[in-house]
Amino acid sequence: MTKEELFQQIQKKESFLCIGLDTDLQKIPKHLLDSEDPIFEFNKQIIDATHDLCVAYKPNIAFYESMGLKGWDSLQKTLNYIPKEIFTIADAKRGDIGNTSNMYAKTFFETYNFDSVTVAPYMGSDSVKPFLDFEGKWAIVLALTSNQGGLDFQMIKDSDGNMLYQKVLEKVQTYGQNIMFVVGATRSESLKKVRDIAPDNFLLVPGVGAQGGSLEDVAKYGMNDHCGLLVNSSRGIIYASSSEDFAIAARRKAFDLQGAMSEMLKKASLVQ
Amino acid sequence: MTKEELFQQIQKKESFLCIGLDTDLQKIPKHLLDSEDPIFEFNKQIIDATHDLCVAYKPNIAFYESMGLKGWDSLQKTLNYIPKEIFTIADAKRGDIGNTSNMYAKTFFETYNFDSVTVAPYMGSDSVKPFLDFEGKWAIVLALTSNQGGLDFQMIKDSDGNMLYQKVLEKVQTYGQNIMFVVGATRSESLKKVRDIAPDNFLLVPGVGAQGGSLEDVAKYGMNDHCGLLVNSSRGIIYASSSEDFAIAARRKAFDLQGAMSEMLKKASLVQ
Repeated sequence: MTKEELFQQIQKKESFLCIGLDTDLQKIPKHLLDSEDPIFEFNKQIIDATHDLCVAYKPNIAFYESMGLKGWDSLQKTLNYIPKEIFTIADAKRGDIGNTSNMYAKTFFETYNFDSVTVAPYMGSDSVKPFLDFEGKWAIVLALTSNQGGLDFQMIKDSDGNMLYQKVLEKVQTYGQNIMFVVGATRSESLKKVRDIAPDNFLLVPGVGAQGGSLEDVAKYGMNDHCGLLVNSSRGIIYASSSEDFAIAARRKAFDLQGAMSEMLKKASLVQ
Repeated sequence: MTKEELFQQIQKKESFLCIGLDTDLQKIPKHLLDSEDPIFEFNKQIIDATHDLCVAYKPNIAFYESMGLKGWDSLQKTLNYIPKEIFTIADAKRGDIGNTSNMYAKTFFETYNFDSVTVAPYMGSDSVKPFLDFEGKWAIVLALTSNQGGLDFQMIKDSDGNMLYQKVLEKVQTYGQNIMFVVGATRSESLKKVRDIAPDNFLLVPGVGAQGGSLEDVAKYGMNDHCGLLVNSSRGIIYASSSEDFAIAARRKAFDLQGAMSEMLKKASLVQ
């Protein structure tokens, strides 16, 4: 998917919502456990209930991988079920030496046909570049993450006063095209700095909802002329209810977020 | 496996060799492609030919994952086949927010029963700690990697002159017990600095062989009173020959490395 196509979807749906499919057997409604593939059944109902309200789905690969072969099968079925115009993100945080990163890229871009993969930057250029060799596919590189531990290293300052995440934003852009960055909503005070260094890149923003980030602040400091934001909510939407009405409850949460996003897009004159 | 048990294996085999199972359908001998599970058949013959010469095997998870369900099945069979006294490393470079890292840890420690997983440190404490909650299991955290891109961020200096990899070595040790570090053999000049900060941790050292690192330098600067080293060779051993004699050729390469390691262990008075 191109940047323009993604922006068109955002305009059409008046939404920059990404829904995280962190689907966990321990957390899905009990009545689904009798179905042949409970994970896929849950995802299918979530997708049916929300696909007109979001522009991206983000399966968290750990949750599928932890279930062994069945989990990978559920993931494949989920990918096949997501409507083609919706951007898909393999939240996998991969990154290794060149020949290995190339293997990971092939897995997610070719075997599973994801539009993008999240990538950890610690190993530098040759760990990221192999993800940039696939037309219409995207690497979403960790810059400033929403978790507490993100502070351990990402905010270390060099002798010029630049923090590690700023160096990552700067350097990674030199690796090639089709790069997005992960910037946590819990770090919205830093979004202005992020935009100074990366004005044009799309940002994947987790941390709204369960982790406590503010959607208003994210839009205020992070939006650019192509919106430039994919704001993710996982648990806040998919586990809004643990009963038989889970899909309706998920739709309600997604609807609220989409409504707020529509207002923000209008305010920024990105939709009419 | 405990540190003492690992050291005992090193003394018994007079070896600190780790063999990387980067098993690739494009590279294994053609005659294996007719077997039911070529990847496992290759690994089985490599293990048969080398298990008395090495103390660890390190499957590179990307290579298995890229083959979809069949690849995970080959991985499971390989794990079941490796003799129990040999240390196993899931080279997966994982790391995510707490609940997700916990999922990854369960996958590799419980579903596949690996002794250890490689972990990327960029997301800090809560991305690493979940790997430390499993008795007898190890997190092997990236510090200074052997690839060219490793220089992009790992050697950035803070205002006190400490490099990022040094901060990682220092900080990650505060997260808990059962931590090893990845330090590339191509950075042997930095091994002395690594040992100043992490005198007791085992180091997983890739980069000897295909990537050009020197075994002598690694032993000289990195060995401690428990050996403290697992030196990995992947392609240099498993692809020593692409013909029917691949297992014999692999044994020959492993034998040479083990012989050199035996001398180094004797020189350091760690074996008699």
